[in-house]
Amino acid sequence: MPSRTPTEPTRSGRPRSAEADAAILEATRESLVDLGWSKLTMGDVATRAGVAKTTLYRRWAGKNELVVDAVAVLFDELELPDLGSLPADVEAVVLQFAALLERPETKTALMAVVAESTRDEALRDRIRDSIVARQKHLVLQGRERAQLRGELPSEPDAVVAARTADLIFDVIAGAVVHRTLVSAEPVDSDWARRFTMLLLSGLGAAAAGRQPGARGPGESRPTGAQKPGGSV
Amino acid sequence: MPSRTPTEPTRSGRPRSAEADAAILEATRESLVDLGWSKLTMGDVATRAGVAKTTLYRRWAGKNELVVDAVAVLFDELELPDLGSLPADVEAVVLQFAALLERPETKTALMAVVAESTRDEALRDRIRDSIVARQKHLVLQGRERAQLRGELPSEPDAVVAARTADLIFDVIAGAVVHRTLVSAEPVDSDWARRFTMLLLSGLGAAAAGRQPGARGPGESRPTGAQKPGGSV
Repeated sequence: MPSRTPTEPTRSGRPRSAEADAAILEATRESLVDLGWSKLTMGDVATRAGVAKTTLYRRWAGKNELVVDAVAVLFDELELPDLGSLPADVEAVVLQFAALLERPETKTALMAVVAESTRDEALRDRIRDSIVARQKHLVLQGRERAQLRGELPSEPDAVVAARTADLIFDVIAGAVVHRTLVSAEPVDSDWARRFTMLLLSGLGAAAAGRQPGARGPGESRPTGAQKPGGSV
Repeated sequence: MPSRTPTEPTRSGRPRSAEADAAILEATRESLVDLGWSKLTMGDVATRAGVAKTTLYRRWAGKNELVVDAVAVLFDELELPDLGSLPADVEAVVLQFAALLERPETKTALMAVVAESTRDEALRDRIRDSIVARQKHLVLQGRERAQLRGELPSEPDAVVAARTADLIFDVIAGAVVHRTLVSAEPVDSDWARRFTMLLLSGLGAAAAGRQPGARGPGESRPTGAQKPGGSV
């Protein structure tokens, strides 16, 4: 493959308009931080970006479309690190995703546009195309690496493999969104570790892993007792 | 324990007001179906319920609080069936939950109030108390039954057990919400079965279960070939 060198944008229209778009999306995120989704207006974004409202409407149908694009840029920053093992990679991406959801500009906006999209098919497709579908590559990449390391079996049936990737994506993204935004509890490294254990090994193993040796129902173990002595 | 017999509400105020509340919440759900969350107003709900707007404001601070209570009633209808095995019970509750999310009155409303709650602590607590915390009993009940059947190990450490139940709740609710509302794909019995397999046995098993016998990378199996002959 030929190596790609970064090309300087020298031609007319295109780069300038990409720059202008980026500035508008940046202004949208600022407005989300200050006002939240419900109070954000196209007028406020236009003022912050120093452009006419008509410029915004030429490019975006309304505030929901603008907000989806503004948030999608942040999702594009998610990266699957290569930490040498599947559990480490999953934990890292879970923490990254949680940190992204905790940002004030995504926190309200993501659920708000999803709520709006339930009554707006075009908006739903936009979310699917620019956020959901784009981030699936993280699952595919993680699986490929894990298969190369021998941590996961290969999946020769492409249809089944794609379906499993979709499932994994919904489970990871859904659990982190629900924990952070619905249960409104923090995703810290302990939660990320326990979630990853559950995802990779399943419920039986996750429950047993916390408590070596099965006990009969009704038997209790006093917390803190039976620690191996020695280190204090 | 003394057995409890249902007591007839004979005293003043209380039962009438409970009835009135139920009628108002029913009117709220109707309004959600017709108008969606963003167009719903306290005035519209008051008109549908045949009460004065002041009656609504005496009981609810605003439309978000009203909508949370109206939706919480539907969540209370979720039930864990006892189908004799943990996978069957999980699959059934996943399908029930997905059907609930597909109802027009919950579809928009749930994500909308969650979005609003990210900037409103009291609303967040209300969602947590009247929806999240109330539905956790499904996880506890499912786990208890599975432990009695010997499908899951007992968890004598109450703190750890509670943390695991929270995790499972976020994974189940989150995955179903994400699949239904964010990815906007249906939760059918095939998805419920594959999700349950992943939850109970983990990723390695879920991937391998789809494809008996590990194969080396690069080897492909033609779809539809190698079917056992005989039944047509």
